[in-house]
Formats: sequence, C-alpha cells, structure tokens
Amino acid sequence: MNLLETIQYPADLRRLSTDQLPQLCEELRSYIIRTLADNPGHLASSLGVVELTVALHYVFDTPEDRIVWDVGHQAYGHKILTGRREQFKTNRRLHGLKPFPSPEESEYDTCTCGHASNSISIALGMAVAAQKQGSKRHVVAVIGDGSMTGGLAFEGLNNVSGTENDMLIILNDNDMSIDRSVGGMGEYLHKLHTSSAYNKLRYSASKTLYRWGVLNDDRKGRVLRFNNAIKSLLTNQRNMFEGLNIRYFGPEDGHNVVELVKTLQRIKEMRGPKMLHLHTIKGKGFQPAERDATIWHAPGKFDPATGERIKNENSEPQPPRFQDVFGETLLEMARQDERIVGVTPAMPTGCSLCIMMKEMPERTFDVGIAEGHAVTFSAGMAREGLLPFCNIYSSFSQRAYDNIIHDVAISRLHVVLCLDRAGLVGEDGPTHHGAFDLAFLRPIPGLTIASPMDERELRRLMFTAAQTGQGPFVIRYPRGRGVVADWRCPLETVEIGKGRKLRDGGGETCVLSIGPVGNVAAEAIEESGRDVAHYDMRFLKPLDEDILEEVARRYRRIVTIEDGVVTGGLGSAVLEWMAAHGYRPEVVRMGLPDKFVEHGTPAELYHIVGLDKEAIIKAIS
Amino acid sequence: MNLLETIQYPADLRRLSTDQLPQLCEELRSYIIRTLADNPGHLASSLGVVELTVALHYVFDTPEDRIVWDVGHQAYGHKILTGRREQFKTNRRLHGLKPFPSPEESEYDTCTCGHASNSISIALGMAVAAQKQGSKRHVVAVIGDGSMTGGLAFEGLNNVSGTENDMLIILNDNDMSIDRSVGGMGEYLHKLHTSSAYNKLRYSASKTLYRWGVLNDDRKGRVLRFNNAIKSLLTNQRNMFEGLNIRYFGPEDGHNVVELVKTLQRIKEMRGPKMLHLHTIKGKGFQPAERDATIWHAPGKFDPATGERIKNENSEPQPPRFQDVFGETLLEMARQDERIVGVTPAMPTGCSLCIMMKEMPERTFDVGIAEGHAVTFSAGMAREGLLPFCNIYSSFSQRAYDNIIHDVAISRLHVVLCLDRAGLVGEDGPTHHGAFDLAFLRPIPGLTIASPMDERELRRLMFTAAQTGQGPFVIRYPRGRGVVADWRCPLETVEIGKGRKLRDGGGETCVLSIGPVGNVAAEAIEESGRDVAHYDMRFLKPLDEDILEEVARRYRRIVTIEDGVVTGGLGSAVLEWMAAHGYRPEVVRMGLPDKFVEHGTPAELYHIVGLDKEAIIKAIS
Repeated sequence: MNLLETIQYPADLRRLSTDQLPQLCEELRSYIIRTLADNPGHLASSLGVVELTVALHYVFDTPEDRIVWDVGHQAYGHKILTGRREQFKTNRRLHGLKPFPSPEESEYDTCTCGHASNSISIALGMAVAAQKQGSKRHVVAVIGDGSMTGGLAFEGLNNVSGTENDMLIILNDNDMSIDRSVGGMGEYLHKLHTSSAYNKLRYSASKTLYRWGVLNDDRKGRVLRFNNAIKSLLTNQRNMFEGLNIRYFGPEDGHNVVELVKTLQRIKEMRGPKMLHLHTIKGKGFQPAERDATIWHAPGKFDPATGERIKNENSEPQPPRFQDVFGETLLEMARQDERIVGVTPAMPTGCSLCIMMKEMPERTFDVGIAEGHAVTFSAGMAREGLLPFCNIYSSFSQRAYDNIIHDVAISRLHVVLCLDRAGLVGEDGPTHHGAFDLAFLRPIPGLTIASPMDERELRRLMFTAAQTGQGPFVIRYPRGRGVVADWRCPLETVEIGKGRKLRDGGGETCVLSIGPVGNVAAEAIEESGRDVAHYDMRFLKPLDEDILEEVARRYRRIVTIEDGVVTGGLGSAVLEWMAAHGYRPEVVRMGLPDKFVEHGTPAELYHIVGLDKEAIIKAIS
Repeated sequence: MNLLETIQYPADLRRLSTDQLPQLCEELRSYIIRTLADNPGHLASSLGVVELTVALHYVFDTPEDRIVWDVGHQAYGHKILTGRREQFKTNRRLHGLKPFPSPEESEYDTCTCGHASNSISIALGMAVAAQKQGSKRHVVAVIGDGSMTGGLAFEGLNNVSGTENDMLIILNDNDMSIDRSVGGMGEYLHKLHTSSAYNKLRYSASKTLYRWGVLNDDRKGRVLRFNNAIKSLLTNQRNMFEGLNIRYFGPEDGHNVVELVKTLQRIKEMRGPKMLHLHTIKGKGFQPAERDATIWHAPGKFDPATGERIKNENSEPQPPRFQDVFGETLLEMARQDERIVGVTPAMPTGCSLCIMMKEMPERTFDVGIAEGHAVTFSAGMAREGLLPFCNIYSSFSQRAYDNIIHDVAISRLHVVLCLDRAGLVGEDGPTHHGAFDLAFLRPIPGLTIASPMDERELRRLMFTAAQTGQGPFVIRYPRGRGVVADWRCPLETVEIGKGRKLRDGGGETCVLSIGPVGNVAAEAIEESGRDVAHYDMRFLKPLDEDILEEVARRYRRIVTIEDGVVTGGLGSAVLEWMAAHGYRPEVVRMGLPDKFVEHGTPAELYHIVGLDKEAIIKAIS
C-alpha cells in the first residue's frame, strides 16, 4: 500500500504510526525524484530534509503551529504533504505552484523565503506574537548551515534570547549552501560534530570521577567546587549557541525519522528558545546527488533510473551563457592584471567565478552567503590597490545596498560590481527577478552603471571597468544565454558613458534601449518594417548626452526599453534629462511594471508584462 | 610640560617613553572634553578609547600600519594625534574637520566609518591585500560591542579565518552602543568577562588534579585521556571567537595604557587572525558622562568644570522635535490599539521610542544595531496580526533594503516603517544624510510612501498608517524640530494617496512639494509675492493623480520640491506621470544634487545645495 497517496494534509500523516514513517519517507523521496526528473527544480536540498519534513509535520500541529523554512529550496516535501501533491507536477511553471513557499498559496506556508537567512528573524517575530497573544502555538525555524553565514541569521540569533519566546531553531547542517559552506561558522559546526565525544564526556565525567575515587564523601566538599566550576564552564561556554542563551541539542542524525520524532517530541514543550542541530546529507537517497550536490542543486531534467542528466542536443554552436563569459573573461583579464581579484557570496558555480577559482584559488574569495560583507570586503581590498570584481545576483545585491553606498561609493573606491541574473530570471519568481537594480542604483552618486546588450559587450564593459573605470562600476547582465556564439572578441575598452547608434531612422520615432532587451528591440524594429532609429545606451549612468541631444532634436517620439522596473530606471533618467535641458518629446517608457512579477519561463513572463517583440512592435508602430 | 602639544603626528608620540603615556592620556582626555564643551560632538565614545588610541599609535607604525575605526564616534583622540589637533576645534563645522574619519582628510584615516559594523570586513580586505602584496603592514580593526551585534560584523568574523591574514580585531567592550548594548552577544561578552575565573581554572586544573592525587604516575594513562578530552573541549570551544578560528586574548582593562602597550607589543607579530577583548568605560574620566553615557553620547554644549549641559534658554514655546511627536503619538495610539508594537535598532533614545518603552516595555523591542533584523522581525510579527512600527534612521534603512522588499513588500505585510533623520541631517555629514530614501523606496511595488510637512501631519499619517493603511507603509521625516508648537491635534486619518492644496494660484507656475521642505516653499511663495499655487503632495506613492491632473491642465510650469536626491524621487515621479498621461508641462525639479553632500548645519547645507528659501524664490520667479 502506498502511504503517500493517503496523505492529503498533515492531519492524515499524524494518523500513521511512528514505524510507518520510514516507508513514507522513502515514498516521498521517490516522488520528489520522479517528479523533478521531468519538471526541473531544486532537487538536492529537498532530498536532504525528507525525514525532517515528515517528522516536523508529524510532531507539530501544522498549520496552527508554524514552520518557517529558510530558503524554499528545501520545502518540496513540505508542499507535497500539505495539500499540493498533485499540483507539485506544475511546480515552478507559469500559473503552477510557486517556486518557494508562499502564504498566498497555502496556509501551511508562513513567509516569503526566496532569500537565505531570514527564517530566524521571521520566526522570532511570530513566536513573540504568539506570546503577546497568549497563544500556545509552536514556531519552528528550519535553517541550513549555509544560510547561517548570513548576517541576518546572526542578528536573529543574537535577539532570540532577548525576549520571552519558546521558538525552536532547527539547524540543518549539510556542510553545503549551494556550493560548499564557507567560513569559520562551517568549521565551527564541523567541530561541534566531531567533538560530540567531548559533549558526552560531560555527562559521564562525574561518574568517572567517582570510579576513580575522586568523588567520595570525604572529598565531596572540594570536588563539588571543582565540579561546579567545570559545570559552569561547560554550561556557560558549551558552544556559541548556548553562549547566546539558546538551549542546544545535537548534533543528531537528520535521516533517522523515528529518532527525530522522539527528539522533537521531547523538546517540543520545553520553555525558552532552543536549537536542534541535525546532520543531513544534501541529495540524500539519490546517489548522483549525494556525490555532487552542487550540480544536483538544480539539475534540470534527468533520468531518475540512471541519474543521467538530459541535455538539449543541438548540433549548432550555442551562444554562451553570460555567466561563463564573465568567468572566462575575468580569468583572461586576471592573467594580465595582477590587481584583479574575484569575490562571490556563495555562488562560485552560479556566477562561474569557479573558472578563475580553479586556476587562481588564491585570488578568488567565496565569502559564503554574505552579500554585504562581499561588497565591504571588496572595498577594503580596493582601498589598498587591488581591483575586486565582486559578482552578486542582482536581486541578492539588494542586501548590499548600504555597503555599496557607504563603503564603496562615498569613498569612490574602484570596485567592479557584476550583477548576474538581472531582469526577469524566470522560474524562480518574484524573489529572484533582478527587477530593481537599475532603479535603486541610479540615485547613488558617482556610480558608473552599465548593461551589455550581448556577450561581446559584456567583455568590453568588463575590460573598460578595469582599464579606464574609476570609482564604483556596475555591470548588470541577465541569466542564461546571449546571442553571439562567437563571443571571444579582442578585449577593448569603450568610452564610458557612450552608447551606440545601431540604426539610423528617418521617421518620427527612435528607440533607446539598455541591456539585452535591445536585441528584442532590434528584431522588433526589423520586423515592423518601420524606419525607426535604435540606440543601445549601454550606460544608465553617466547617460550619453550626445545621443540624448541628437534624439531630442531629431525625433518627436522616444521609446525607452529596459528590463528593469519602469519606476525610476532608464525611462525616468531620459525624462529627467529632457526636462532639465528644455526638451519635451513624447517619451514612452517600456520596462517591468510597478508590481512583483510571478514565475514562469522568461519568454512567458516578458510576454505577460508587455516587454516582448510583439509589444515593442506595437509601441513603435 | 604639556606633552600633547609636542605631538603633531604619531611619530612624535612614539618618541615618548612608556611611563609618559598616562600623562599624555590625561592631557588628551582633557583636551577632548574642553574642545567639545564649546564645539559639540560625540563625547562619551571618544573618552572611552583614549588609552587605546594612544597605545595603538604608540605600538603600531601608522599610517603604514592601518587602523580601521568602526564608527568614527570613537576617533576624536585619533584625529588629535594625527596632525589635526588645532583643526579639531572646527570638528563637524562647515568646511571644518569631517565628523568621522575620512581618507580624503588624512592618510591616517583608512575608510568611511559612519555606519556601524563594517570595520572587520574592511580590515580583512586590507589585511588580505597586504598578504597579496607581500607587505608586512599590520591591520587593526577597532570595533565596539554594540557594533558587534550587526550582521555585517558577523559576516566579517565568519570570514576572518577563511584566508591567510594577520589582522588584529580589538573588541572595545563598554556594554553600550549608543543606548545599552542588547541581545545575546552582549550577555555573552559579559559572561566571558565574569567567567575569567573559569578561564584561569583551565591553567590550574592539572595542578589541582595532581594535588588531589588524581594525576600521578600510576594513573597517568587514564587521566591523560580525560585530561586531553577536557583540553580539547576547552580549546575547541573556549569561546565563540576561537570557535571561529580567531585567537582570543582578554578580557583586559582598556584604561591601563602601560599594560595595553605591553599586550599589543606581545601579540602584534603573532601570525594569523586574533582578537583582543578590552573592557572600557564609555565616558571614562568625565564623571557625568560615566554616569549617563546615553545622554553624553552627543551632549551638545556643556560646562567642562561642572558638567552642566547648556541649553538654549528660550521663553517662547518651541515646536517639538519630530522624533518626540513620533514617540508620544505612538504611545497614545498603542494605549488604544493592542496590536501596536514598537521596534528600534539600537536607537530608543534617538528616535524617542523610549517614551513608549517606559510605559510598555513588553511591547517595545530594541534589537541592537541590526536594521535588517528589525524589519524582518517586524514582518514576522505583522504576519501574526501585530502592527509593528519599526523606526529606523533614514540612512541606516539602506541596510534593510532587501528586508523591506523581500520580507515585507512581496508579502504585502502591514509594517509601518518610520524613517527618522530624512533629508540633510547636518553635522554628521554624507554617511548620515537621509538623501536616498524616496528614490530607493519608490521602485518597490505596493509600498505606501508618505512624508509629513509638519508635526500634525506626522500624527495624522501615523494614525492613517495604523487605521486604514494596508501593506507596508513608510513615513519619513526629518531630524530636529518642526514648525507647530501646538502639535497635539486630534488623531485623524487622511485619505491615502491624497495631497493638500495649500494655496491656489492664478499664474503659470505651481509648486508640488513633499515633506517639511514644503514650509520653506510656502515662505518662499509668500515672500516672492507671486501668484503661485502650492500643493503638499504628502504621498510619494501612490501619487495624487487628481492633483497632477489639475496642475497639468492649469499650469504651464510645475516646480517639484523635495529634500531627497533629485535622481528618481518626486520630480521623476511627476515627470513619469505626465509622460504617461500625455501631458508635457515644463517641470523643474528641486532637490538634493546627484552627489554626496558634506557636513555643516542643515541651514548652511540647504543653502549650498540650492534648496533654501532664496533658491525657491528664484525658481518660481
């Protein structure tokens, strides 16, 4: 009998006996693997928490009790057990299940969890609210060791003991974030694990002392004092978490569901904040994923039987991914320029800094999930004459906003910020779209902000940033592949603040675009058959005033096109310039709307928001 | 003989003998007190690090060795010893010494340090650069325990051991940030201090075991194992910092300059990252400041002999400070609305949340220097139906940008963000001006963004936010006093997204202002004698489209006025609306320029940037 099929909601799960849980875990694991083989998603994280997911919903009375997942990657099992088993096949698809838990989708989902490290703060807020409201509900945060390197997680931990609450933090320690976990925290957790022998010692110490005859009635007085001292030492400083006044349990095996249930039942009703430290294996139960959890973090389609990943066979040479152009170009430049160093917050594979890392490990820095530190650390290196290329996903760079302003821009330090995943990223949805970067960076004084239309332009902009750039220099580019298969052009600089006239126009309309959406605009113009001029602005800041002057004089109608929010981006910059210089052309601003865009394929989403070829043809006709 | 007067630069200091240093410290302390009595600044922090400052410059070869001060509050002694003794009298004044250390001002200043918690990341970058460059220079970060609660500091700490470097972190532990230090970290540091007895135990343990006869040749074998276990336990987990692979020294008395010099000399050449934990007293050596370091953080003018603070005597009732209107109004509302809770990151006094805190300690939360957590924690409480008013200084809210987007806005949670210190703050300079908030918040979908023109409007907006507001609601208001002495109007709501017509106009020009700069605009219009219409927009988002429609139809020329950067703020929003609705009036945008504004009094600065009465008269004439 298949148990999983009998479970619509956790209440069904709670009717099982404990000894049925291992079977359920196997079924759940298998269901995740089979579904993801065909409908790609985040595999390895979810496999690592199958037992934990089952145990949590078994022991806690969800949805009345709250589970806060840190980074929704891990929450597939949770979705399947909470009324979404069938829908799970639509996961991450347009109008299908959302990529990460979302309170809009299910009452079992407690918060937005696309960005790491927020779970402790959210859960603390909920636990405090429960106290204030006199509710007995439990609040559990589940956080990975990777997320634990984020400053926000620490700010949360630091506040856990400051106010009355009974929250439980589960530290899901698999020694991985997406790539490997880095920093002292990772090593520290490892030590906690290996030192469990010493932890046990604590319990047996007094027994040992008795056996040796140290502890007997004669010596009771003086030993007591010694013993108390040891005890104080151990309880005060047993580990970092107890140092922060959080009761600590573990480490335990996170894949023994029966034991896990017992442990959770035992600590569930304890008062005050507590942490349970579990060891899990990312990708658990699927051999290929256990062997290489980085690749299997989000593997795409695969054969669930053989573990072979299914790649699009295509005989034509494909354009490269922007991230690889970044990675290859940086290495190429670093070979010639000793000042160059690379920095990434936990995304060496995702941003392809791994290419340089392989050849120059000593000049690349993976700082863990710590975007703020990545930027400020880069500032420190730039101050001393190194030239850091700091690569952050666009939406994650929101976490480094003050670092960019305060630590880099005010000091006019020469840090090159490469923002990958700009524009709509697709299936990862609203938390991951790089929608705001142009708008929030533009107000910062002294920034150079560029976005390449294609891979060659990315190379030129990176080279320009290194060679003639001064002060902070931002280059933002999208997820996925570009348009030029033959991308290895010579490294040349471009003039900072200068765009390119791609096409002259004899009509009344011109198009000013920035970034890769310029390719869509070019196609649209071609297809429209209209005599429309097209300029690739290349730089949002400084703006190319020669182009603006030219189009203001020549065209009645200016269409601006950008793959960022239309509120405050290129279109606004053009309007500002026109107003300040006494021109009043008609300006039509195309870009992302002033709302959060859902998930789907980029093509689907660009169509929905009106930023595809058809929409542009309409706008210029 | 006065030693201080013989010292222009640290090289002079290093010619003194160690036993002259206590006298120098007294002179330096006295010089700081006397100078600040007349020229206000940050007193208590700098008094707390007099000995440390002298010891650092004595032991280290500055400026070749680098000292990174976390938060420049503490750096007055540093300025005085590094070529700026006389100029120190101009500290914080227009064109005088900058409020915080700045590399533009002195080669002894290594970084921008207005916002807390960045020193470890910056110093790590410098230390890594020194390694890469084969330099033997030392890098020292000086960080207070308050700053240690910031996530950025933790991200830095977590990365310290990840790469080869010899940096020294000095933890200046005075159990205070500006108000008292909060959270587990503060308690943890306190425990480290009080548990020094247990630390000593470690060294004497084996001796004790010998004395008891436990450790003798017979029992050597089995005891050795026990002993090793204890040792491993102690060395692995001695404390949080050693857990992160940072060698830890201390705690030591930070006011014994002679001992401090010895300690620094002893650990200076040790390889690898290390931390020296010092206990200091904020305000040390000036009794009133030692007694109340919060008031004496930045006391204004005072009598150095009696410690009496000099207040402007003024018989007329003065308008209140905006912060007090916030504090009083929040308490008033909280008495009637059980959902309301207050959150501040380390600024209960600065933002006057202390008013509510006094009466309702259990409904107010000081989370320490942790702006990101403040917002995300608020999100968690809002999720459960509480109504958090989270108060953050405008420029510090840059640190919570992703928290606002990801944890609040995407989930449309009803969190009221009150941003104090918006606009130009004056003497604290570019790191503290609240210049960017309107521009960086406007692109976020679903935010309500308001700025009150006066104190009564602040009350109304707060009440509106609580009563009819939905989703995230931002109210930003300036430092200092408002304009209405009689501010206690009844609590009433206003219509969200609706401005006020303050004055009709028969001419061609109208003024649209937002925030308190509207008062300056009103005066300017009055004084100009022109027939100019004036609207207080009140809301940046949603915009009052009725007003925009009206002015677009009636006026040829629209002057927008805001106390935020002109790049992306109200003026741009008006331009965008006009363009989208087919209007093309002349729009003149007045606001802060696209550059970092220096320090000075607000009046001086608003004059310099062209946002005072004269400039507005000129613009409307």
